Amino acid sequence: MARQLYDLASADPALRFSPYCWRIRLALAHKGLPVETIPWRFTETERLAFSGQGLVPVLVDGERVVHESWAIAEYLDAAYPDRPSLFGGPAAQAVTRFVNGWADATLHPALAPMILRDLLDVILPEHRAYFRESRERRFGRTLEAMAAERDQAVTGFRRLLQPLRLVLRAQPFLAGAAPAYADYILLGTFQWARCVSGFRLLEGDDPVHAWRARMLDAHDGLAGRAPGHEV
Amino acid sequence: MARQLYDLASADPALRFSPYCWRIRLALAHKGLPVETIPWRFTETERLAFSGQGLVPVLVDGERVVHESWAIAEYLDAAYPDRPSLFGGPAAQAVTRFVNGWADATLHPALAPMILRDLLDVILPEHRAYFRESRERRFGRTLEAMAAERDQAVTGFRRLLQPLRLVLRAQPFLAGAAPAYADYILLGTFQWARCVSGFRLLEGDDPVHAWRARMLDAHDGLAGRAPGHEV
Repeated sequence: MARQLYDLASADPALRFSPYCWRIRLALAHKGLPVETIPWRFTETERLAFSGQGLVPVLVDGERVVHESWAIAEYLDAAYPDRPSLFGGPAAQAVTRFVNGWADATLHPALAPMILRDLLDVILPEHRAYFRESRERRFGRTLEAMAAERDQAVTGFRRLLQPLRLVLRAQPFLAGAAPAYADYILLGTFQWARCVSGFRLLEGDDPVHAWRARMLDAHDGLAGRAPGHEV
Repeated sequence: MARQLYDLASADPALRFSPYCWRIRLALAHKGLPVETIPWRFTETERLAFSGQGLVPVLVDGERVVHESWAIAEYLDAAYPDRPSLFGGPAAQAVTRFVNGWADATLHPALAPMILRDLLDVILPEHRAYFRESRERRFGRTLEAMAAERDQAVTGFRRLLQPLRLVLRAQPFLAGAAPAYADYILLGTFQWARCVSGFRLLEGDDPVHAWRARMLDAHDGLAGRAPGHEV
């Protein structure tokens, strides 16, 4: 049975933009595990019923079905211990969870308002009303209002990245000398933006910009070759 | 030659409040290495001239002199490999650097304005003019103005802690099942506040509050027994 990943797609099935799915695509490449990605769209929850819930990523690996990006990463490292580790051992895995939490709870709420209006344009027309309504409710203002504020908001977003800059002064990747899951988590965040929006998140002389370039090149350019904007 | 740590002290030499020095005191306890702590006050840079710079913590370990908290932690783990590891291996050490950066670049600038006015009251009178002037210049407003805003500012500080809460849903310590340097970094931040200020940073039902209580108890209550406020 082939290995399959249910992966959030835009109207164009080649454009995959979920930060959580990108974490896993990069993780699978790190482990050297081929995968067939299956395009999945917002609201197609019944197609995921076999997983017991309604969100991507969902990994089908032979008989095993695993959902939620962190759980999938843990599963991959445990199920394929002879492949390169995603974490580098249990101690590193525990601390990498903090990077995961930082991306989810700090970076994403700061980034989303700057790209959601652009994202609306790339999803299927029949999903736009749902998308607009749910996101405007979550953020308490219209997608257009958020987009209008982004030239100011990006300053705060860049400030949030300062801990990452301090790390990159000392080492080329968050995981050290080579990328690992901590880096895939954060590249997922930037790839989400890059896939749907041409808005300039990073200045060219930002060490985070150079790190992102290295990450877009990693694993034969898996992320960098994917459809998206110049960054 | 005894092991000595130059440790920032208040007017009362028993009150030690530097977050960076607390990282190292906890790290030394973790490694089971006894240390004599030497009270040091702001502006006594000449007393540190032997270290080639003017900031604490400075560790004197036999012939070795090491300054800057991260460098000291790395030194301790490398010099005493048979003692419990502060990081749990090179991969974990690389990712722990991110926690260090997050404390320094995100938490401290948010926390400092809420406690600096209280801190002024515990340092030696002759250092207060220097302290006030340097901190008011850094933050662009008076210590009293910062203190007046803290009931509002604490909401933003608590929001910044959300990544830590996500981690603590899954594991009791940032480093996993037991505390390690990632936890000492963050306890240093909270201990800085606890030693100088009675301002309530955390609500009682916050998982971060419970984590802090566990950390204050760690290593025979090293941090919790130190002079400070009820938290």
